[in-house]
Amino acid sequence: MTPKDISLAEQLAEAAGEAIRPFFRAKFDQEAKSDSTFVTEADRAAEAAMRKIIEAECPEDGIVGEEYGSINEGASRQWILDPIDGTTSFIAGRPIFGTLIALMQDGWPVLGIIDQPIARERWLGVVGRPTLFNGEPAKTSRCRDLKDAVLATTTPHQFDEHDAEHFMSLAGKVAPRKIIYGGDCYNYGLVASGHVDVVCEAGLMLHDFAALAPIVDGAGGMMCDWNGEPLHAEADGHVLAIGDQARVDDVLEAMACHH
Amino acid sequence: MTPKDISLAEQLAEAAGEAIRPFFRAKFDQEAKSDSTFVTEADRAAEAAMRKIIEAECPEDGIVGEEYGSINEGASRQWILDPIDGTTSFIAGRPIFGTLIALMQDGWPVLGIIDQPIARERWLGVVGRPTLFNGEPAKTSRCRDLKDAVLATTTPHQFDEHDAEHFMSLAGKVAPRKIIYGGDCYNYGLVASGHVDVVCEAGLMLHDFAALAPIVDGAGGMMCDWNGEPLHAEADGHVLAIGDQARVDDVLEAMACHH
Repeated sequence: MTPKDISLAEQLAEAAGEAIRPFFRAKFDQEAKSDSTFVTEADRAAEAAMRKIIEAECPEDGIVGEEYGSINEGASRQWILDPIDGTTSFIAGRPIFGTLIALMQDGWPVLGIIDQPIARERWLGVVGRPTLFNGEPAKTSRCRDLKDAVLATTTPHQFDEHDAEHFMSLAGKVAPRKIIYGGDCYNYGLVASGHVDVVCEAGLMLHDFAALAPIVDGAGGMMCDWNGEPLHAEADGHVLAIGDQARVDDVLEAMACHH
Repeated sequence: MTPKDISLAEQLAEAAGEAIRPFFRAKFDQEAKSDSTFVTEADRAAEAAMRKIIEAECPEDGIVGEEYGSINEGASRQWILDPIDGTTSFIAGRPIFGTLIALMQDGWPVLGIIDQPIARERWLGVVGRPTLFNGEPAKTSRCRDLKDAVLATTTPHQFDEHDAEHFMSLAGKVAPRKIIYGGDCYNYGLVASGHVDVVCEAGLMLHDFAALAPIVDGAGGMMCDWNGEPLHAEADGHVLAIGDQARVDDVLEAMACHH
């Protein structure tokens, strides 16, 4: 992890934003993928723009991209790219999707970016450094009690029946009108900035969560799986982000995932 | 309905936005109300600013405000105000809440505004005129088949068990990854602008839906209750917005609310 890596990551975010902006609320091609998610021209253009830069600047690094697959799979440094996290929000014209860029070193995320190209908002997390939001330090909020927490999750349809029981068990500890839906990666940025207290999701892929941990952790929060374990390349996609580390045990206890 | 009413309504939106912006992502007081929703300093400041203008400019008009109640209840002209629709989104720092302003004449909404003061986006609907988005005409999209539709709803928790059955029956006709949650009034603006095809909600109050119908209708869509009836002051809060009028029967049939 060098200053050059950080500036390269920011360059990737700029390139993705340039590729995405012309398509927002405009006409674009879209199609269903085999996993029943959607991909648009904007996703493809943004990932292609980022890959071109990495291949030119760091040809030996690995790339894992949501739309165009993997190269250099054995490399210790891997760039994990999700050109548009929240494609449905993008299609619906909501400016709360994001480009996710992560650098993983030996399977652990060491740099993450969430970039919202319409509102021009960017969270940058680097392991061992304070998280920045548009260049200014971001800090999670204290949360004295789960009943005061803002709890976010993208969609109830991400949970299978078993997951849904755990989520509802957590949701039952929070004021019902403080549970917000939608938001994808944007929710994790809002945790880092202290506006959302807890995000609870399931079914996330590596490209969905790799960028998030350095951002939330570097802002004073904690990201982990539903058993409280840190997120690495092999994590199972059950993800928690908790702004106040003093509430981690309360969240895990409320979810009752330990058998 | 005169040009002066339209300019007054826009003046209300400006005043509300001025009142709200300083509180966004800042510290503010908040409290739970008796209906378990939340109210913040920003809600109160924005409604007070709007009421002051109406009371000065149109002292005989009625006002129905979410936070400060009703005056001149017998007047044929009633201003319906929701200073922040989507207070939870506002609290969470998401720029997809809105100020709702409606003018009702004899129980029917004849003017509506959705104003998003952070992104500075405004939808203006006036009965008999084309809807404007930031001053430019807004048009809903064609939707050839419900399976291609983007379906939006704010939260699954708004539905009681019976409502949820009808909603899930509609949701079953749509591609699962094209159902988006969150958004409150912003979703209806996105229907008017052609990015969302259907919004389906329950439990809405007059101040939540009065402003929406002139906006969606004037953009070529249709708003109605779950039985297909137009929305008036006594509507029961089960609300549909459908961008393509050719899909209204399909939506009502999918929901199977007629017994």
